Amino acid sequence: MPVIALGLDFGTESVRAILVDAEGHEVGSSVSPFRHGQILDALPGRDEPLPERYALQCPADWIESASIATKEALAKAGLTGSEIVGAGVDFTSCTMLPTKHDGTPLCELESLKSRPLAWPKLWKHHGALEQAERMTSIAREREESFLKRYGGVIGLEWFFPKMLETIEHDPEVAELAEVWLEAGDWFVWQLVGGDSDSLVRSTCQAGYKAMWSAEDGYPSQEYFQAVHSKLAEAVADRMPGQSVEQMRSPGQVAGHLTDGMAAQFGLPAGIPVSAAIIDAHSGVPGVGAAEPGTLVMVLGTSSCHMLNATRMVDMPGVAGVVEGGILPGLFGYETGQAAVGDAFAWLRKLLNRESFDDLAEEAMRLPPGAEGVSCLDWMNGCRTPLMDGAVRGAFTGLGMQHGPAHLYLALMEASAFGVRWIVEMLRHGNADLADTNQRGSANSSDQGVPIDRIIATGGLPHHNRAFVEVYADVLGMPIEIHPSSQGPAVGAAVLGMVAAGPEKTPFSSIAEAASAMAAVPEDRRDLILPRLERTEAYDLLYRRYRQLAHAVAMQQI
Amino acid sequence: MPVIALGLDFGTESVRAILVDAEGHEVGSSVSPFRHGQILDALPGRDEPLPERYALQCPADWIESASIATKEALAKAGLTGSEIVGAGVDFTSCTMLPTKHDGTPLCELESLKSRPLAWPKLWKHHGALEQAERMTSIAREREESFLKRYGGVIGLEWFFPKMLETIEHDPEVAELAEVWLEAGDWFVWQLVGGDSDSLVRSTCQAGYKAMWSAEDGYPSQEYFQAVHSKLAEAVADRMPGQSVEQMRSPGQVAGHLTDGMAAQFGLPAGIPVSAAIIDAHSGVPGVGAAEPGTLVMVLGTSSCHMLNATRMVDMPGVAGVVEGGILPGLFGYETGQAAVGDAFAWLRKLLNRESFDDLAEEAMRLPPGAEGVSCLDWMNGCRTPLMDGAVRGAFTGLGMQHGPAHLYLALMEASAFGVRWIVEMLRHGNADLADTNQRGSANSSDQGVPIDRIIATGGLPHHNRAFVEVYADVLGMPIEIHPSSQGPAVGAAVLGMVAAGPEKTPFSSIAEAASAMAAVPEDRRDLILPRLERTEAYDLLYRRYRQLAHAVAMQQI
Repeated sequence: MPVIALGLDFGTESVRAILVDAEGHEVGSSVSPFRHGQILDALPGRDEPLPERYALQCPADWIESASIATKEALAKAGLTGSEIVGAGVDFTSCTMLPTKHDGTPLCELESLKSRPLAWPKLWKHHGALEQAERMTSIAREREESFLKRYGGVIGLEWFFPKMLETIEHDPEVAELAEVWLEAGDWFVWQLVGGDSDSLVRSTCQAGYKAMWSAEDGYPSQEYFQAVHSKLAEAVADRMPGQSVEQMRSPGQVAGHLTDGMAAQFGLPAGIPVSAAIIDAHSGVPGVGAAEPGTLVMVLGTSSCHMLNATRMVDMPGVAGVVEGGILPGLFGYETGQAAVGDAFAWLRKLLNRESFDDLAEEAMRLPPGAEGVSCLDWMNGCRTPLMDGAVRGAFTGLGMQHGPAHLYLALMEASAFGVRWIVEMLRHGNADLADTNQRGSANSSDQGVPIDRIIATGGLPHHNRAFVEVYADVLGMPIEIHPSSQGPAVGAAVLGMVAAGPEKTPFSSIAEAASAMAAVPEDRRDLILPRLERTEAYDLLYRRYRQLAHAVAMQQI
Repeated sequence: MPVIALGLDFGTESVRAILVDAEGHEVGSSVSPFRHGQILDALPGRDEPLPERYALQCPADWIESASIATKEALAKAGLTGSEIVGAGVDFTSCTMLPTKHDGTPLCELESLKSRPLAWPKLWKHHGALEQAERMTSIAREREESFLKRYGGVIGLEWFFPKMLETIEHDPEVAELAEVWLEAGDWFVWQLVGGDSDSLVRSTCQAGYKAMWSAEDGYPSQEYFQAVHSKLAEAVADRMPGQSVEQMRSPGQVAGHLTDGMAAQFGLPAGIPVSAAIIDAHSGVPGVGAAEPGTLVMVLGTSSCHMLNATRMVDMPGVAGVVEGGILPGLFGYETGQAAVGDAFAWLRKLLNRESFDDLAEEAMRLPPGAEGVSCLDWMNGCRTPLMDGAVRGAFTGLGMQHGPAHLYLALMEASAFGVRWIVEMLRHGNADLADTNQRGSANSSDQGVPIDRIIATGGLPHHNRAFVEVYADVLGMPIEIHPSSQGPAVGAAVLGMVAAGPEKTPFSSIAEAASAMAAVPEDRRDLILPRLERTEAYDLLYRRYRQLAHAVAMQQI
């Protein structure tokens, strides 16, 4: 019988189920959209508009869509379900929610279903801006050592600002919350039991989004007390699952599939389920990148760029560094861009076009620099390196001769310049390089960590190669497009396989499983090479971009 | 028999003929597009693409279209032509051309018709950027006193840079040029004779576009010699019509209609023709504004804002101050914005929309500041106060929540902020006010000249009242929309009437004719009033605009 693992990959609008065997064949796959999608305008069945910057989800959608997708994937693969040895789950993060002790989401209580803050907050919910800023400034005042691991900033999308938002804006809901947790952890919890004994938390989500580390755990009670007494109380009493044995790494077993869930999903009862992983981070095992020095770019609605290294460097601007956060034994550096596919969708809508297909050729014929048009793609704020959700985007250099193709190329270039800034920051350990013409001096500094190879995954590289070409030109480095457009989903399957253990599978580590199931042999890699003459032009244009970024960051414009 | 004057109003794409009687009734009007429109891509009948920034016209089009429009206007009015007592001409400027002694344009010579620089250069032709900059810097080095009258800058659209461009880029054409002159002067010359004796030049065009003044004439031979010996030679030998009696003010008689032209236009032979006036400047008599302190905004493709004052103030940033340049005995201040209707057309095309009509309501419901979107409308450079055709436009503050209505409002606001900058500059005699919150202190400074009243004319105010509302809100002043959308054309008719003289007409001055033919009585004025709460919001937003303008002007972004 074949050995097959299930990966469940939760996105913002839908969930994908993928079935992968031990040789890496994707034997079946299916996507199921969430019934309520993103909840942006009003709660289901209600008219009152939600406040601006709110983005919620419905937890029942996650279970419903995941079971549909799994059964469809099994059917497509012609499998009965009995072939599945383990399951892994990757989830958007920080998507989080309050529940009762038995796992019931507060939003499912009749008395609370009309209260927006009883619902899960999606990763992109930006209602906690003020809370994040306050938590950052208090941590700075107190010189909290955890700050160094996050570039000195607590993100407005993170776990504790979102908790504090509810405590301050709807104290009644906060009072009724018995468990606060990540949505990925909640979903895994439901698969393996759903009672208070079976709750485990992922070190990945905790490490990147809740300032947790293996050494120090969560921030201290003193710190939380300095922020808000109710927050300190909630962290102590309303976050079960903090014990060492309940904090589990991706690939470790979180529990075993219950009979009820097995029936609902069409899977064997009792198979192991891996602890959850953040969706983007799942792309690292998902492309078979198990070694330090490989930057994995997950390019989608937003982008996440992950790098493993053998050492920890405090770096202002990095979104997070977590020991073992992605791969065991390595330091996982997370960086990101807040709007990529999202920014293109926005521009497409603004320019009133069905697609960019008819513009792509014209745009790619333009010289580097879009004949004078510059762009800053901060339409959703800047994640790395500013960690500032409030800054905004721009187009400059606009003249009468410019049309939509110029704006399209300028936006691609802005996105690529953003990656270049991130690469330089990681290599040099510093986001503020005054002389930005450092492309040639790759890995020359001992202040940063090396980057030797770049792999692109996610949906974008497959339907827009031109976009990756601009990235390669701007970076002056080859970029491999990983053949699977489902890096994170494959990564979840790798974790499910690893959770099944060496008795049921050929693998005894994530590195082994990732190599066998997801890596592309060197002679078969799909490489996009930089074009030298464009790379040279971009060296100068990158400085113009940095000037524009500086002016916006400094509120000069 | 009624006393009627003809106004011929030359635009960029077409010419309008208007017939106005002594009481100001517009008895007939017709527009005729130029057969070759603007020549931007290639010369007529040829394939070679023209260099970027070239904009040419065909002189035969002017005669052909003007005669068609005149005959159509007469027919519409039910007139025979014998009722017409005089004609006035306004023309775009500086549109200029080289001709032979007998007035034949060089581009009509078989041997030169394939040479782009033998053709008339349209006002917006930007091929002389380098020449304008060189002429400015040499004038500054030599501390030429004429510079003060032009805000310290010789514009790239002006007469002598355009001459020098040909001298340097096609010396053969320059060698064959026997007469260099403004297109308005050329057209009037054709009407009244076309031989070298009948050539007169307009003091308006010469004063605003060729650094001429009644006191000093054109700049000195020493200055031209310092620029280029061939330019000095051409000014001395190839610009007939510089004598005091050949330099005529608008409203003065340039000559009398020839038999041939009378037949072609359907007009009586021998009627007086006024010296030409610049199209925008014609809007001042055209709206009946014959007193100092009234800012006349001619809003069209680009905008021209003209003000008459009783004294001369040297003002860095003003496009030109000419004594008697618009009205006899007053100092005419010319300022302008390089892209207004043009910028809206560009944005409409960029956003792929048929019109802005469906966006206008949504845009006007937005609060001042377009919910964070800022714009700089320098898509065609900045005329006043920077006099810099090379700077470019921008949109900043862009977020995912913004759509086309935000960009539309932001562009209207940018245009209005540009006018506010001009108004402050005129009132304070200085474009660099550090504290820009000076709206309240109208006319308080003795460094500038007063502005008591604002009249809007041109096409734009009539088909876009919302636009004028934004102007009024930003300026915090009422704006009168003049009922005629043809201010410049009416102005030309006023000048034609004045040229006919007190024997044939009731008038002995431009002021008298303008008041009777074009002014609106105080109780019948169409006033747009500022909305106080928006005006207050704009005070702050104006500072943001000035910051953005500063950053672009200083090349910080």
